[in-house]
Amino acid sequence: MIATMMDVPLSLNHLLDRAGKIFSNNLIVSRLPDKSLVRHSYGQYHRRTRALASALQQLGLKKGDRVATLCWNHHAHLEAYFGIPAAGGVMHTLNLRLAADEIGWIAADAKDRFLIVDDILLPLYRQFAGLHAFEKVIVFPFSGAPVPDGFVDYEALLAGADPDGLQYAAHDERDPTSMCYTSGTTGRPKGVVYSHRSTVLHSLVGCLGDVWDLKGTDCLMPVTPMFHANCWGMPYGAVMMGAKMVFPGPHLHADDLLDLMQLEPPTLSLGVPTIWMSLIQTFEAAQTGQPGRWKMPAGMRSMVGGSAVPESLIRAFAKHGIALQQGWGMTETSPLATVSYPRAELRDAGADEAFRRAAMAGTPVPLVDVRICGEDGREAAHDGKSPGEVQVRGPYITGSYHEVPVSPEKFTADGWLRTGDVATMDELAIMRITDRTKDLIKSGGEWISSVDLENALMAHPAVAEAAVVAIPDPKWSERPLACLVLKPGQTLDRDDLAAHLTRHGFAKWQLPERYEVIAAIPRTSTGKFWKLKLREMFPR
Amino acid sequence: MIATMMDVPLSLNHLLDRAGKIFSNNLIVSRLPDKSLVRHSYGQYHRRTRALASALQQLGLKKGDRVATLCWNHHAHLEAYFGIPAAGGVMHTLNLRLAADEIGWIAADAKDRFLIVDDILLPLYRQFAGLHAFEKVIVFPFSGAPVPDGFVDYEALLAGADPDGLQYAAHDERDPTSMCYTSGTTGRPKGVVYSHRSTVLHSLVGCLGDVWDLKGTDCLMPVTPMFHANCWGMPYGAVMMGAKMVFPGPHLHADDLLDLMQLEPPTLSLGVPTIWMSLIQTFEAAQTGQPGRWKMPAGMRSMVGGSAVPESLIRAFAKHGIALQQGWGMTETSPLATVSYPRAELRDAGADEAFRRAAMAGTPVPLVDVRICGEDGREAAHDGKSPGEVQVRGPYITGSYHEVPVSPEKFTADGWLRTGDVATMDELAIMRITDRTKDLIKSGGEWISSVDLENALMAHPAVAEAAVVAIPDPKWSERPLACLVLKPGQTLDRDDLAAHLTRHGFAKWQLPERYEVIAAIPRTSTGKFWKLKLREMFPR
Repeated sequence: MIATMMDVPLSLNHLLDRAGKIFSNNLIVSRLPDKSLVRHSYGQYHRRTRALASALQQLGLKKGDRVATLCWNHHAHLEAYFGIPAAGGVMHTLNLRLAADEIGWIAADAKDRFLIVDDILLPLYRQFAGLHAFEKVIVFPFSGAPVPDGFVDYEALLAGADPDGLQYAAHDERDPTSMCYTSGTTGRPKGVVYSHRSTVLHSLVGCLGDVWDLKGTDCLMPVTPMFHANCWGMPYGAVMMGAKMVFPGPHLHADDLLDLMQLEPPTLSLGVPTIWMSLIQTFEAAQTGQPGRWKMPAGMRSMVGGSAVPESLIRAFAKHGIALQQGWGMTETSPLATVSYPRAELRDAGADEAFRRAAMAGTPVPLVDVRICGEDGREAAHDGKSPGEVQVRGPYITGSYHEVPVSPEKFTADGWLRTGDVATMDELAIMRITDRTKDLIKSGGEWISSVDLENALMAHPAVAEAAVVAIPDPKWSERPLACLVLKPGQTLDRDDLAAHLTRHGFAKWQLPERYEVIAAIPRTSTGKFWKLKLREMFPR
Repeated sequence: MIATMMDVPLSLNHLLDRAGKIFSNNLIVSRLPDKSLVRHSYGQYHRRTRALASALQQLGLKKGDRVATLCWNHHAHLEAYFGIPAAGGVMHTLNLRLAADEIGWIAADAKDRFLIVDDILLPLYRQFAGLHAFEKVIVFPFSGAPVPDGFVDYEALLAGADPDGLQYAAHDERDPTSMCYTSGTTGRPKGVVYSHRSTVLHSLVGCLGDVWDLKGTDCLMPVTPMFHANCWGMPYGAVMMGAKMVFPGPHLHADDLLDLMQLEPPTLSLGVPTIWMSLIQTFEAAQTGQPGRWKMPAGMRSMVGGSAVPESLIRAFAKHGIALQQGWGMTETSPLATVSYPRAELRDAGADEAFRRAAMAGTPVPLVDVRICGEDGREAAHDGKSPGEVQVRGPYITGSYHEVPVSPEKFTADGWLRTGDVATMDELAIMRITDRTKDLIKSGGEWISSVDLENALMAHPAVAEAAVVAIPDPKWSERPLACLVLKPGQTLDRDDLAAHLTRHGFAKWQLPERYEVIAAIPRTSTGKFWKLKLREMFPR
C-alpha cells in the first residue's frame, strides 16, 4: 500500500511567495550606515528578491553555483537569503569578523562565483581580493554613495531585472540553498551546506510555541550576524510567519541597539550573551547617569546562545520584564538543537528553580535526537550528574562537511554528529553543557567543569566576565585557572571569590588554583571564549 | 554541489520516543464508560504503545497491512495512532457514526486485516461483521468487563508483549501510517492515506504559534472524534510537544463535557460548531437554573471547524473568556489548510472587525498553497468579493484516493486538489467560505451564498440554527429556502427575519423565498449540514 499524499518538495520559494501574497503590507526595517531607517513592505521585499533571482540567472548563475555575501544585517542580505536559492544558487555567508586572509581562503575553498558585498565593506574585500577571483562583485550601495567603477551595482541590477518573468530553478528538496563555514577554533574552517528541506524543517521547528514562539504579530530584531549560522535561521522563520523585522545594520554597540529599540520596539530578538551583558550594563549605567534616556522593551523575549548564558544575566533582564531564553546548537545543527522553555513539570517549582533551569541549554527540540555518550561509549543516565559527549542526529543536522572525508572524530559509526561539547541531562531531559571536550579540566583523576566555575564566578558582584582554563600541574596533572574581567572600580579579592564559590557548592579541590585579572576575554569571531588564546597567555 | 545534511526520515517513531524520554511524567487522562477517569503517564503510554507494536508484529502484521480501529477518544486509541505505524501497519479509523453496512463496506474496501474495537462498540461491530472478515478482532476492555470469548483481549495482548525488544519497522518517510475515508455525502466514501512525512509536517505546522499554538504546558481536550481526519491531527502534535491530554471517552453530551472541564480544565480543545453551540446553550441555561454548577475554563482556546462557525457563537464564548478559533480543511488536507488568527495588520482594527475576521476560514498555513479559481479558470482577485473554487496543494494534501483513478473532477491538470468549496479571499489573504460548489444558489443569473444567509440568520435572537438550500423556481431558476431551528419558546416571524437580513446588508432578491421551521437540521456523520436531505424534505 502507498500513501496518497502529493509529492510537493519543501522549498524556500514557497515561503517567499507566501510572504509576498499574504503579508504584503508588513514591514522590514533596516538601519543604514548613517543610522537612518529604511522601510520595505513584504510586497516590495518579494518583488526585489525575485528581481535579484532573475538578475543572477541573467548573469549566468547555474544550479549549485555559490554566491558569497559579505554583508551586515539588512534587507538586501535578506533578499540574498531567498533570492540566491530561488535562482538555483547557494548563498555562502562570509564572516566579516575573520582575518582577511581567512575569508579569502574560505571563498576559494567554497569556489564562490559571485560576491554580494556592502559598499562599506569594500576595504575589507580589497584585503582578500587577491586570494580568490570572484567572477562578479556586486556592491550593495548601503551607504547611498555611488558604486565604484569595476563593480556591479546591486540596485541597478535589481532595477534592470524582471521579477515577473522569473522562473524558479527546478529543485529537489535536498538541493543546497546556503552554506556556512564553522568557526574553526582548531584546524581549517569547514563548510556546512544546508538544503531547502533542512531550512524549511528548521524554520517550522524554530517557530513552534515552545521554541522561538515566532508569530506574525512579532517584531524581530536580529542582532546575531546573518553570517553566523544564517542568523540562527530566524530570518527564514520570520518570513514564513510574516513577522516584522528590524535589522540593526552595522550598528551593534549597546547604545545603538538601545536607541533602535526606542524607535522600533522589538518583541523578539536574538544575540550572543556578550551583547546582552553589554546592553544591560550600558542601560543600568544610564539609569543613574541619564535617567529616562532609554526604556527597555518590556515583554520582549530574546533568544541567547553561542556560549553559555549565566543565570545572573537572565535574572538581570527578568527585572526589566525581558525573558532571555537560552538555546544551544552550532553551525552543524542549523543551529537549533536544544532550547530552554517553561516545562509543565516545573509549573509549581518556584522562581529560583525556573531561573536555575533557564540557565541550562534546555530540552531537545522536535526532529533532533540528542544523546549524551559517556567515556564508556554508552548513553549516560538522565540524572543531571553523569557527563558525556553530546551527540546529535536529525534531518537538519550535518552528516558531513563540504568536500571533506567523513572522519570518526566528527561522526560516530552509527551516523551521529559528535559535537565536542560535554553535558549532563537531567530527569526532564534538560541538558546542561559543562564543557567543551577540549576544555575539560582533569584534576587528580576527577573532571572539573570550567563552565560551572565561570557561571558561579560571573554571579559574583565584582566580576563582569570569567573564563576558566586548565593549566598543567605536576601533582594533579591539571588545575583550573580563572581569568577575570572585573566590573569598573572593583578589585580582586581571592579569598572572597573562593568563599563565594564554596557557597555555590564547589568542593575545595574544584576551586581555581589561580585568578588572573585581564582587560577582556579573547573571543572567536562568533563571540565564544577563545580558550586556546587564554592558555597561550598563561602557559603555566 | 550537494547539501551535507543527514538523510534522516521524518518519522512518527521519533515523536513517540521523544515523548517517552522527555515528557515521561506528563499525563494522558481518559474518561471511562462509567465516567471515572484513568491516568497514564507519557512514560507508561510510551511503553504500552511499544508493547502494542510488538504484539502486532507477533500477530503477523506485515508492512503496509491495515489495522482498523472502532473506538471512542481514549488513551488506547492514541496507542493505536503511534503503535500501528511503529509496527509497520496502517491505522484505519472507522467512523462509528456511519450506518453499519457502510462501515462494513469501508473495511472491506480498505482490506483491513485486524480490528481494534472498544468493548462497548461490539454491538455495532456485530452489525457489520458479516460484511468483512477481520483476521483478528482485538477488543479493548474499555468498560472493564471481561472480553467475550473469540476475541483477542487488548490488555492481555499488551501484557504479554515485549516493549523493550521492539524493532521499529524500517520505513521511508513517504510510507503510509494511517488512512481515513471521506464522509462522502455524494458517491462512495474514498480512502485518503497519510504518511510519516505528511503527519510529521502537519504536526509541525499545527503546533505553530499562529496555528494551534500547542505547547507543552497545554492541556488538550480532543472532543472531535479520533476517527474524523485523525482528530484533526492534534493528538500527534500533543505527543510531539508533550502536552497533557484529557480524552472524553464516549461522553460527548454538553453536560458531560462541562463536568469533565471542571475535573480537568483544558487550555485547548477542538470540536465542530454543533458541540460548542450545545455547550454554550447548556451552560447558559444552567446559569439561571443551577448557578454555580459549572465554571467555563476561562483562557481556553478552542479550534472549531468541520463547518462554518457563526460570528454569534464566537462572540458568545468570548464573553466567557474563551477564544474560538476557526480552521478550515478536510480529510483530504490532513486537515489543516487555513486558520483564523490575530493578524498584525488588524492590530488596531477594533473588536468588531476582529470578530468579523474570526468568523472567516482564515489564512493559509505554511506549506499549504491555496488558490481561488473563478469560473473562467483563472485565479480570482484577492478583493474579498470575487468567488471561486478553493484549490489546494502541499506536502500533506492528498494527490489521489486509495485505489481510485485520479479524476479531473477532483484534481486539476496541474496537480491541485479541487475542494468543492467556494470562497473569496481578501487583501490579507483571509479566506471566507461562501458555499459548497454543489450548494450554490443561482437566482436570476446571480449567485447567492447560502453560508452568508445562514450566518446572518443564526445571529437572530430567535434562531438556534439555520440551513439554506436552493429550491427550483420557474422564473429565477433557483431561490433560497431557509430551514430554521428555533430557540425554545420562540416563534417564526418572517417579516422580522427579512428585516433582520436587510439590516445585515442583504439585497431584496437575496432574501429567502421561504422559511421552514424544522426540529433539527439533518447532519452527515461528521456533523456537517446534510443539504441533500434538506432538499429531499422540501423538493419544491
